[in-house]
Amino acid sequence: MSTIRVVQWGLGAMGSGMARLVLDKEGLELVGGIDTRPEYVGRDLGDVLDIGRSLGVTVTDDPGSILRRDEVDCVVIATTSWVSEQMADLRTVLNAGINCVSIAEEMASPEAQNPELAAELDELAKANGVTLLGTGVNPGLSMDLLVVALTAGCHQVTSVEARRVNDLSPYGPTVMRTQGVGLTPEEFAAGVEDGSVDGHIGFPESARMISDALGLDIDRIEQRREAIVSTVRRETPHVVVEPGMVAGCKQTLLGYRGDEVVLTLVHPQQVLPELEGQGTGDYITIKGVPEINMQITPEYAGGTATKGIAVNSIPRVVEATPGLKNMLDLPVPAALMGAAAYRRRV
Amino acid sequence: MSTIRVVQWGLGAMGSGMARLVLDKEGLELVGGIDTRPEYVGRDLGDVLDIGRSLGVTVTDDPGSILRRDEVDCVVIATTSWVSEQMADLRTVLNAGINCVSIAEEMASPEAQNPELAAELDELAKANGVTLLGTGVNPGLSMDLLVVALTAGCHQVTSVEARRVNDLSPYGPTVMRTQGVGLTPEEFAAGVEDGSVDGHIGFPESARMISDALGLDIDRIEQRREAIVSTVRRETPHVVVEPGMVAGCKQTLLGYRGDEVVLTLVHPQQVLPELEGQGTGDYITIKGVPEINMQITPEYAGGTATKGIAVNSIPRVVEATPGLKNMLDLPVPAALMGAAAYRRRV
Repeated sequence: MSTIRVVQWGLGAMGSGMARLVLDKEGLELVGGIDTRPEYVGRDLGDVLDIGRSLGVTVTDDPGSILRRDEVDCVVIATTSWVSEQMADLRTVLNAGINCVSIAEEMASPEAQNPELAAELDELAKANGVTLLGTGVNPGLSMDLLVVALTAGCHQVTSVEARRVNDLSPYGPTVMRTQGVGLTPEEFAAGVEDGSVDGHIGFPESARMISDALGLDIDRIEQRREAIVSTVRRETPHVVVEPGMVAGCKQTLLGYRGDEVVLTLVHPQQVLPELEGQGTGDYITIKGVPEINMQITPEYAGGTATKGIAVNSIPRVVEATPGLKNMLDLPVPAALMGAAAYRRRV
Repeated sequence: MSTIRVVQWGLGAMGSGMARLVLDKEGLELVGGIDTRPEYVGRDLGDVLDIGRSLGVTVTDDPGSILRRDEVDCVVIATTSWVSEQMADLRTVLNAGINCVSIAEEMASPEAQNPELAAELDELAKANGVTLLGTGVNPGLSMDLLVVALTAGCHQVTSVEARRVNDLSPYGPTVMRTQGVGLTPEEFAAGVEDGSVDGHIGFPESARMISDALGLDIDRIEQRREAIVSTVRRETPHVVVEPGMVAGCKQTLLGYRGDEVVLTLVHPQQVLPELEGQGTGDYITIKGVPEINMQITPEYAGGTATKGIAVNSIPRVVEATPGLKNMLDLPVPAALMGAAAYRRRV
């Protein structure tokens, strides 16, 4: 089988990491980069990626100049968390007749909160004979695909709980701000109110995927964002949290079928939870027949895994039938080692 | 979408359990049963399944009398562990133009030990426009699909270890004999030698699936079967194990790439391991970037889950492209609750 030619759209921390990963993979070829940052445009992609060699292609801010269906097999796009903000760019990719992997959190299941846009994307992908997938570690793997995979042998599922406890210490100022780290509890509450503390993006999408796959018939969801108030001093390169201040955001989703809670998603995100004796991990409990209790400790590494799953999904997307897909519609991606990216069977 | 019409072939403990599960599922309809036991043939299927009602179809020992492509969508076959023993029946199903789910352990990846038969099955399935899948909890889920799914976000995998510790207490005389439970260590060694203690069936198949999916390039496997000698008295309804006698079989597979072990599968199966302080569970360790440590405790329930995964896979098999498939070729099955069996998108 032939090599898959990939364009990376968006060369921020995630996008440039994915581009470097594509370069590492036998069977994948990085053929272009798109970004609007003036300091990147016109420079050699290898230079922008800081890999110590030229790639012979320059970063462009004009997608139309490189997105040709006979020259590109898949675009990986990493520009925003929101479907509505990514729509114009997704239309450009699909109309060019090119497959696409998006790590926008809402794209994991755009039906959840953007049903009209999802329908448009599905039609557009089918009309152009290509596949569009939203993925990432969460949503996309740790609190949805893995949950569903664990039910594969179940006769019955009465309720599901997934909990992901992670450490935000590696992240920079943007994440600190959107998670409310370093705020007073009052500032945090105000930030939740005005939307500046938006916490984790993706719970409605994970809930929709799980409910549809299992037939849980969730008809209503509730989300809460609560301050994790520290009792100790916590310090990272980007923030200092004094006792009594906010170390992070505990986000909870409850999924109801009628009056019954059939799905609980809990995601406390904070800096240095171990300073209060809290280990990190992914924990999934399936109530039903049989019951299943799973844990991954420490947690499935966040940013690293999002880059990995996006790149590992590329062969799955290229071989899939046309349309808008989620992670439950495709065979599970595998870490691509050796010549695995070539070993596809449809 | 329309209801999926299912025939159960083989009405032993596993087959009759799957047939009852099909009856429980909205979107699936049990339309026939095949078995050669004289005491079943000619009786109403509901009577044989002991469900307290008639199903209006009689159990037959003549597959040709009920396997018509316009009346049956999928056969679930539970007759043997071995591809060679199941070939004639699989040919019958495929030549009738009907999809098939097999729980024969070797069918999880027949390429592993029966490559010529696998090629024949793939051709036959494609020629008849149908899909054939081998599945079960192990092989099929706990030591292969779940391993691969956990690598979905990995940049690199250098080695994999999966360990499944289970309790054989629920099982009857056949399992006790094939696992060597209750033998002396000398009898166990002789049984391994002459093949009467065959332990777990499926390690070469799991290894093949993992190696192909990840590109681990395993070029040689070694298997060992060792006696688990009890230090305490262990008693179940079917067997008594005195101290110094064999409580079970510890099976190990090492997968080599050159001289390097890149895959280790360990499966100690015994009665009442907790009497020696050994808990049960599934444990998977992925070495690479990132590293992943997963545990499911207690273990993913064996017989229960095999029945579940076979039935939950039926919609996936019916909607798949034609050919021989394994669990990594298809989207992961989900527990079918509510109307989930209808909610398919291809």
